[in-house]
Amino acid sequence: MMEGDRLKILVAMDSFKGSATSVEVGEAAKKGIKESFNMDEAVEVNVFPIADGGEGTIEALFYNEPDFIYSETVQGPLLGQEVNAKYGVDHETVILEVAETSGIMLVEKDERDPWCATSFGLGQLMKRRIKAGYRKFIVCLGGSATNDGGIGLLNALGYNFLDAKGRSLGHLLKDMKHLSKIDDSSVLPELAQCSIRIASDVENPLYGENGATLIFGKQKGVTKEDENEIDTILKNFAYLTNQLTKTIYQHTKGAGAAGGLGFALLSYFDSEIVSGFAEVARIIDIEDHIEQHDLVITGEGMLDAQSMMGKVPVAIASMAKKYNKPVIALSGGVSKDAAMCNSKGIDAFFPTIRKIASEREVLDRDNTLEAIRETAQQLFRLVQLFS
Amino acid sequence: MMEGDRLKILVAMDSFKGSATSVEVGEAAKKGIKESFNMDEAVEVNVFPIADGGEGTIEALFYNEPDFIYSETVQGPLLGQEVNAKYGVDHETVILEVAETSGIMLVEKDERDPWCATSFGLGQLMKRRIKAGYRKFIVCLGGSATNDGGIGLLNALGYNFLDAKGRSLGHLLKDMKHLSKIDDSSVLPELAQCSIRIASDVENPLYGENGATLIFGKQKGVTKEDENEIDTILKNFAYLTNQLTKTIYQHTKGAGAAGGLGFALLSYFDSEIVSGFAEVARIIDIEDHIEQHDLVITGEGMLDAQSMMGKVPVAIASMAKKYNKPVIALSGGVSKDAAMCNSKGIDAFFPTIRKIASEREVLDRDNTLEAIRETAQQLFRLVQLFS
Repeated sequence: MMEGDRLKILVAMDSFKGSATSVEVGEAAKKGIKESFNMDEAVEVNVFPIADGGEGTIEALFYNEPDFIYSETVQGPLLGQEVNAKYGVDHETVILEVAETSGIMLVEKDERDPWCATSFGLGQLMKRRIKAGYRKFIVCLGGSATNDGGIGLLNALGYNFLDAKGRSLGHLLKDMKHLSKIDDSSVLPELAQCSIRIASDVENPLYGENGATLIFGKQKGVTKEDENEIDTILKNFAYLTNQLTKTIYQHTKGAGAAGGLGFALLSYFDSEIVSGFAEVARIIDIEDHIEQHDLVITGEGMLDAQSMMGKVPVAIASMAKKYNKPVIALSGGVSKDAAMCNSKGIDAFFPTIRKIASEREVLDRDNTLEAIRETAQQLFRLVQLFS
Repeated sequence: MMEGDRLKILVAMDSFKGSATSVEVGEAAKKGIKESFNMDEAVEVNVFPIADGGEGTIEALFYNEPDFIYSETVQGPLLGQEVNAKYGVDHETVILEVAETSGIMLVEKDERDPWCATSFGLGQLMKRRIKAGYRKFIVCLGGSATNDGGIGLLNALGYNFLDAKGRSLGHLLKDMKHLSKIDDSSVLPELAQCSIRIASDVENPLYGENGATLIFGKQKGVTKEDENEIDTILKNFAYLTNQLTKTIYQHTKGAGAAGGLGFALLSYFDSEIVSGFAEVARIIDIEDHIEQHDLVITGEGMLDAQSMMGKVPVAIASMAKKYNKPVIALSGGVSKDAAMCNSKGIDAFFPTIRKIASEREVLDRDNTLEAIRETAQQLFRLVQLFS
């Protein structure tokens, strides 16, 4: 199985949600593997963190090429908040992450307020990149603090939101109750030349019972009392958008991603929704890298029947199987139905949980990383007994 | 590593205490290993359950030679209770297990009563084997319901316990408050020709703050109020024993095993205390069997720093290392300090816990066996990737 004397291992793990990022879990696995070999040169371990378009995607995408990560200070999710938002450049494409400009992790829990949280910063960042000459964008829609339908983003790019008397309403959701016209007379002309790939695995529409507000609103601070009022505003915004753009995207899968940003990007741009994982896999050429390694380690926080449905470990495994590469999965826990993974290209899978402990203790970041390191270490001690 | 084409695996696991016996965990591991191989003939798995002299020792000792297990109906731990007690015969030695005749698992929790629980049945069984011509015994002292200092056993073998007026007191602890003489005039004469190996890893003396009553009494129904009274009775019994036998064993390590049975066996017989594991290992010739296999699987309920101190996995590993056999340990959980096991001959160790769950759920027998099976299965799927 080894080429020459050196075992080449590729680590391509998803984050362990609620515990540690894909970079962290990948490095922990690498550390454990390296520790298990007496001779450092006997093994080469390369970490390719896998993100799915959610928070941490930029960091993961450019993990082995950090020189292509840049950052700029823009409007954060709250008015008056400035954030230093990372973005990446892959050839001629700018990769933006909503979590960087308008992310929920940028707002303390008790300050979350859907009426005032804005996607304006994402539009600012996009505008500056357009001014710098870029026309191709990938926007990763995960982990947003906003529920503004993308109105903030559109405003930053030159769209104006007016009341019945033609007065500008700004760009906060709370001011859109009297929205009656969307004015595109000041829009950045270069937008017409731009194309956007929207990386999102969310399938919800803009509004309604499966829409952004009712499904994802709660964690952003939407109260039961405000739900209907917010949805009414989004519905009106969608109606006015339909008039202006001659498109109808509010019911499209993904329109409700990132608090309705999906809808704005679909309606106002030359754009398409793409799977977060597929986009990431394409950008980092993961399949080429897999082909050049002897063995693949993948994993995610919990391996269960859901993992069969296009999630990271099974997706990685199916690529690896094209090249007959063995695949080992590590996950915090595994459910009883996880054995099905064996038929999906995961040759063997191992939970990293070490003992009976509280959920809080098991999910703790440091404990998680230590458990991954130890599991990988023992597994590769075992492997060497048979090599 | 394999001899010929067939991988020969020896499974020698301790019980997972509170969950499953050594037979059950060994068979679960075997099942998982067998499932991982496509060709049944590619692997041979032999289970040698390891007991330490406690409950289940007879079953484990004769697991691969069940024809040498016999049973007889004798007095159980409670008066009026009959039990069918197993014992084994290894060459010329009879192996008795106190858990079989007077075991705590034979008494419902709310019926446990140290004043009335008796070791009489063990003496009955021993007497019958003596009558049948046997002179060598191993007595396994784990899991007793009794705290009678071995008075029941001695009575069954002919010792009589008398009050100041020479009246017989029977053999129950509750009747020993007025014990003032031990009469050996009716003792079975063959006792003088008998020798006993006492298999016990308990180090407690007969009475006092580290004695049988204060340390192990609670689980047998000893109340706080009765502790001192019981200890006073045992102290008096020891004093009278010293007079009669011209020995002083009440302070010896192990005198307090099985509610003081250790003391009776030490004082009244040609006997010695031996380590439960060492005795079991010797009887089943485990070292010879290890030599004839390619790989050893061991394990116990929890692998931690305590496992270093002469417990089963490390003891098995040190035997295996004499013959350079790889050793894998499975345990329900592993502690942070378990990595030390690697320096004690355990090449790799793996917890079998699968996910965050309550102690009750994890320790459940069926869940434990399923977890062991799945862990073994995935480990040997991994092994085959590299073989």
